[in-house]
Amino acid sequence: MQVSYQDLHDTLRRALAASGLAPDRAALGARLIADSSRDGVASHGLNLVPRLITMIRAGVVDVGARPVRVSAHGALERWDGRRGVGALNAHEAMDAAIALARIHGVGCVALGNTNHWMRGGTYGWQAAEAGLIGMCWTNTLPNLPPWGADIPRIGNNPLVIAVPRAAGHVVLDIALSQFSYGALAAYRGRGELLPVDGGFDSAGRLTRDPAAIEASRRPLPIGSWKGSGLSIALDMIAALLSGGRATHEIPADPEQETGLSQVFIAVDGSSLATRDEATRLIDSIVASVQVRYPGQRTVETRRANLANGIPVDATAWQFVQACASDR
Amino acid sequence: MQVSYQDLHDTLRRALAASGLAPDRAALGARLIADSSRDGVASHGLNLVPRLITMIRAGVVDVGARPVRVSAHGALERWDGRRGVGALNAHEAMDAAIALARIHGVGCVALGNTNHWMRGGTYGWQAAEAGLIGMCWTNTLPNLPPWGADIPRIGNNPLVIAVPRAAGHVVLDIALSQFSYGALAAYRGRGELLPVDGGFDSAGRLTRDPAAIEASRRPLPIGSWKGSGLSIALDMIAALLSGGRATHEIPADPEQETGLSQVFIAVDGSSLATRDEATRLIDSIVASVQVRYPGQRTVETRRANLANGIPVDATAWQFVQACASDR
Repeated sequence: MQVSYQDLHDTLRRALAASGLAPDRAALGARLIADSSRDGVASHGLNLVPRLITMIRAGVVDVGARPVRVSAHGALERWDGRRGVGALNAHEAMDAAIALARIHGVGCVALGNTNHWMRGGTYGWQAAEAGLIGMCWTNTLPNLPPWGADIPRIGNNPLVIAVPRAAGHVVLDIALSQFSYGALAAYRGRGELLPVDGGFDSAGRLTRDPAAIEASRRPLPIGSWKGSGLSIALDMIAALLSGGRATHEIPADPEQETGLSQVFIAVDGSSLATRDEATRLIDSIVASVQVRYPGQRTVETRRANLANGIPVDATAWQFVQACASDR
Repeated sequence: MQVSYQDLHDTLRRALAASGLAPDRAALGARLIADSSRDGVASHGLNLVPRLITMIRAGVVDVGARPVRVSAHGALERWDGRRGVGALNAHEAMDAAIALARIHGVGCVALGNTNHWMRGGTYGWQAAEAGLIGMCWTNTLPNLPPWGADIPRIGNNPLVIAVPRAAGHVVLDIALSQFSYGALAAYRGRGELLPVDGGFDSAGRLTRDPAAIEASRRPLPIGSWKGSGLSIALDMIAALLSGGRATHEIPADPEQETGLSQVFIAVDGSSLATRDEATRLIDSIVASVQVRYPGQRTVETRRANLANGIPVDATAWQFVQACASDR
């Protein structure tokens, strides 16, 4: 099923407003979420909205809360997300990092006490569209066994890196697990093996069988021990700078996953390299690599979805439509 | 073969001085290199010294060059490494980032036109010992096929993240290839298979056979497509901010690998969290994970090597001893 961007955006805006978001914030939230589905990341766009609204209704997400800056040291700031809507908090935090970077060359905002930011790439695109390099990450509930253990104790802590480029921004958006549970389910549904080992089976053997990993709950971190260490390091920095929770303090139930810690870094390279120089350099790298660059597929998907309509999951779409008509 | 730290340090100092480094710089270089071997990373310590001295003699590394700051915007600076000794350049760049972070909360120094930094972890430990969070990366010569290609076009671009901690700093130091060629050779020498797939064989099949990967020259990036994208993004940022070379512009011959681009970021979290708070948080994360944290093994190895002597590679040690007696 496919809907137009305008229909998706309007319905989301009404559903969010009916859930208690102020009009301007419902509009921004609708744009961020519709953009994610438009860009082919419906799993972190429309499809997460039922959970968001459920968490608002349950009082886990405080729909009226706005993030506040609690301390600052030059280009480094700590913000309290006050358990508000995660995507709006993250958007405001990256805006603050961008503003700091315009003044200081680089800006770093640590946001604690926040909620699921939905699609991490959103904040990378946000920095790139402002002409800045962006880097951000979030911790998550414990959903990944560290290398050497068989029980989830670390998060898959998505990491986003964005580089502005006239011919299409380069935006990397990776969770630190090799495959999400959503991806495992999709491979299983298509009856396919994974292209590379994705985790351990219940006997502790590495496997490409998605069902075996769903059963064992032992997906692999990217790079095995390397991604495991990266997850731990990013969690430490996010919790330390934000004063918020570390992964092991976050409830393991997705509908109770709150109090997340995030870091947003922006770098204004325009004082060092002109836009033309940057474009030439980045274009030459893209050309030299001769494979897709991070974000390339996004731009192609975006174009196709705007032309042909945005594919929507029937269940999520019906849920959001019903919320929108509650108004 | 094992030597004392003092012997290793003195011999390195004399060898570097005999190669043309000024006395203070020979002493610093000797300390950084001896520390790497002491910490169990001889591959990026003593064992790289013959190549360093060969490159100095060939004029690829300019032994007398000091890095200079070429532009600045608040907490963001661009430095020119002037093809000087890579480890000394990197050490000075991280020092500059630390100084910026003490003023601005966060500091970012991009260093172009530099040489191999030897052990990346050196600059993570440097930040952590100063009480700051450190993050740095370097690009390299093309030594890794991007995901979807079979010829090396990206670098394994080591990434370092350090978090200070009273009971032992957390220092992650990872190249973005799953296994280095050195690691592949070591597994082959021991007649062992790799613990996880490490690359493709010449027929394009994923394999744990180290010799097959050495033959195909197709090692895997960490996380396959994810590490491939991460390598590209880090290369872009390093070259863009430093005004230096991107990986595809760096000669593929290791003894001609010059003009590298690096980024050094330091964050002074002391204005946000006291040392006690930070220690409590990091300790609780370390305890919760119940596996080794990045850097833990380093501290144990350091202790053992200081007590029992530092294992040295006979060939590298003889080379350095001969250089030291050239004086």
